[in-house]
Amino acid sequence: MKITGTFIDEISHDIPHQNWGAAEWDADFAHMKSIGIDTVIVIRCGYRQFITYPSPYLIQQQQCFTPPADLLTLFLQLGEKYGMQVWIGLYDSGKYWDTGNMQHEIDANRFVIDELWKQYGHFKSFKGWYLSMEISRRTKGAIEAFYTLGKQCKEVSNGLPTLISPWIDGKKAVMATSGTLTKENAVSLKEHETEWNEILDGIKSTVDVVAFQDGHVGFEQLVDYLSVNKQLADKHGLSSWTNCESFDRDMPIKFLPIKFEKLRLKLEAARKVGMEKAITFEFSHFMSPQSAYPQAGHLFNRYNEYIQAL
Amino acid sequence: MKITGTFIDEISHDIPHQNWGAAEWDADFAHMKSIGIDTVIVIRCGYRQFITYPSPYLIQQQQCFTPPADLLTLFLQLGEKYGMQVWIGLYDSGKYWDTGNMQHEIDANRFVIDELWKQYGHFKSFKGWYLSMEISRRTKGAIEAFYTLGKQCKEVSNGLPTLISPWIDGKKAVMATSGTLTKENAVSLKEHETEWNEILDGIKSTVDVVAFQDGHVGFEQLVDYLSVNKQLADKHGLSSWTNCESFDRDMPIKFLPIKFEKLRLKLEAARKVGMEKAITFEFSHFMSPQSAYPQAGHLFNRYNEYIQAL
Amino acid sequence: MKITGTFIDEISHDIPHQNWGAAEWDADFAHMKSIGIDTVIVIRCGYRQFITYPSPYLIQQQQCFTPPADLLTLFLQLGEKYGMQVWIGLYDSGKYWDTGNMQHEIDANRFVIDELWKQYGHFKSFKGWYLSMEISRRTKGAIEAFYTLGKQCKEVSNGLPTLISPWIDGKKAVMATSGTLTKENAVSLKEHETEWNEILDGIKSTVDVVAFQDGHVGFEQLVDYLSVNKQLADKHGLSSWTNCESFDRDMPIKFLPIKFEKLRLKLEAARKVGMEKAITFEFSHFMSPQSAYPQAGHLFNRYNEYIQAL
Repeated sequence: MKITGTFIDEISHDIPHQNWGAAEWDADFAHMKSIGIDTVIVIRCGYRQFITYPSPYLIQQQQCFTPPADLLTLFLQLGEKYGMQVWIGLYDSGKYWDTGNMQHEIDANRFVIDELWKQYGHFKSFKGWYLSMEISRRTKGAIEAFYTLGKQCKEVSNGLPTLISPWIDGKKAVMATSGTLTKENAVSLKEHETEWNEILDGIKSTVDVVAFQDGHVGFEQLVDYLSVNKQLADKHGLSSWTNCESFDRDMPIKFLPIKFEKLRLKLEAARKVGMEKAITFEFSHFMSPQSAYPQAGHLFNRYNEYIQAL
Repeated sequence: MKITGTFIDEISHDIPHQNWGAAEWDADFAHMKSIGIDTVIVIRCGYRQFITYPSPYLIQQQQCFTPPADLLTLFLQLGEKYGMQVWIGLYDSGKYWDTGNMQHEIDANRFVIDELWKQYGHFKSFKGWYLSMEISRRTKGAIEAFYTLGKQCKEVSNGLPTLISPWIDGKKAVMATSGTLTKENAVSLKEHETEWNEILDGIKSTVDVVAFQDGHVGFEQLVDYLSVNKQLADKHGLSSWTNCESFDRDMPIKFLPIKFEKLRLKLEAARKVGMEKAITFEFSHFMSPQSAYPQAGHLFNRYNEYIQAL
Repeated sequence: MKITGTFIDEISHDIPHQNWGAAEWDADFAHMKSIGIDTVIVIRCGYRQFITYPSPYLIQQQQCFTPPADLLTLFLQLGEKYGMQVWIGLYDSGKYWDTGNMQHEIDANRFVIDELWKQYGHFKSFKGWYLSMEISRRTKGAIEAFYTLGKQCKEVSNGLPTLISPWIDGKKAVMATSGTLTKENAVSLKEHETEWNEILDGIKSTVDVVAFQDGHVGFEQLVDYLSVNKQLADKHGLSSWTNCESFDRDMPIKFLPIKFEKLRLKLEAARKVGMEKAITFEFSHFMSPQSAYPQAGHLFNRYNEYIQAL
């Protein structure tokens, strides 16, 4: 099972920035392409006050800062140059994280989606949408938010596909800033199945792809969870991708590149249950030969040896 | 607004050491010079048992370890070589951090100041003093400590200028080793103004420059705080510099280089309120092309592009 | 006092992996050799589900994952190539960490020791055993575990030497994932002596070398603790090595390379009390010129200058 897609983590939530300019991004798309990545997913077009593109709406109505560069234009142009699909993530106001209320995300993105399509819809590389709210379990309002935003994305863009990437509320589902690596009150496989059956049922008409993050459960539990994820997606008619995280959740430094052996285990679990595509969070920090973390370049080499032997 | 000064973080409190020798420090002064830095500020000449110069007083009276190198001589010589000012920071015994009592800092530095001037006063690059106690709000004894130490520094050195760099007790004012990034009980703008009016009034006769750290308040609050800082300094006759932090306070890894966009926002806020000079904490880890953090080299490039377009 | 041995931290507990392949390991053994390292100690042959060699027992009986490479063969071959001794660490099931009960370590390693000797005993570079349980004070069952496992190691291997590397329960003995750097309830020097006198007495017939970790007490306390460690080992007929940690326990990022000055202080303390050998945890992350942490390469240079001036 090869990784053929990656998130691009701009604007970042908890991964330090690399301060790359256009030249570094161009080189990184070339590195991605060299190992078979055909899809990049911009994880969000803005987070709280920081945004990836000069948005009149977000600057004037949401008090966002005028960005020093238009990263969306850059990424979409690089997508055209390298023949890669670019999926654009929505705006994350941070208010959901602070209050647990999804309404603000719906209200703000109503304008953002229109603006994004108007400003970037002409790029041939613009091939999909990422609904960037990260949820798990029966987050209050999640079904309505995904349904509503997915619907609008598809309507403005002549039906471009929509993607979500939720997390499993497993034992490693702890905040990056917390002083721990695991928690006691993890979801059970049965609860996970029950709750996500309900969620997928509610969003299936406007969400096309679900790519669960694969890093929150034990490695020995992963096949079971991926299997349930695949069955649920099949039942409700969604495509099943796996979001194969390339950073290590088991280390005190949060986060550095994952050990190759763990990445391989997770990819093989995904292959075993028949996942349709593997994407990763994310190539540029954790798998790129030019990452600020040299472990990433070694992971790139180990991964390359692995896929060449497949 | 260009950065024309930087701290040098030896001896470090919470930033891991780079283990540079004389050759790396020489190269770093050249890098600093290349972007217009004319002032380096040694953040402290010693911290608890570790010291930057062979100090008979600190080794014999304060049980400090004999250092493997005389960094003050090295930095002062490099200052002369590159035509840069060197400001020397005082000794931090750590006892203030442990007990909240400033008296020990006053007692120990009485001897350290004399010794520093005797050993290093002949260097033409020795151009100022840094009172290295980092305080905020009405820290018990802070006024007396700053006043007393500033007075002695100026008296022994024929009036060389003195600098302090306090922190604003804002929402990001948390310990580096804590598991959080923000706190609830931040100071209000009004409290900040009232308290610092009192402090600056008490120290104005022996402290010449105040350079508040700019990383403890929200980016959207910064112009307001900088504006108050500038007005208070003007009122009491001090020079206003900004300490534009080049590390990122919003990430779980404490600390890596800041995102360029944030640095730019902070510099533009400082320009807006008329700050007289911008210094940074600090170039060698967070902005240098030879930093152990490659993100720093990219920040150097982004910053260079920025100032060349000014 | 020169460092002539190093741990190899595969499988890692809390240090992020570098994702090296055979070429990088070969280069690292050459780097080690260049500064006089003659002994490498594989810290454990497995940890929980991850293992360093294809072990039928651990895969079939302990549900471990089949590893992507046989690191033990690699390390033993490199030991032969470079004329270095390789000491092999036992299996750490993790159950002792979770439950405080040593019995599982004894039960599992009974099989692992036999398997290791059968698979790797023919390598001329296989020169010793490392009993990888890290304990301190009178850990319940520690004496029996060390005695039993040491006995078996020696019996199967015609008396190859056995090594332990316990920690002193000092003020810096905190978990890597905790949000603190120090604790209040540190052991006293007298308690340390009393308790370790009892432990060493109980294990002396099957453990040949004790190498206490040197990073858990204050630098000013170190000579006292090392001195007690040396006296106790002498009394019970064990060899005394020091495990001179090359990572920094005083920084919020857990962990990056240590400041050279601290390493030097610790080596000189070890020399002062007459330690017979210094090993380090560990070269490849914290002292190697090819480490992902560039501070390690600078530490390598500083250390090299130091030993060349001895």
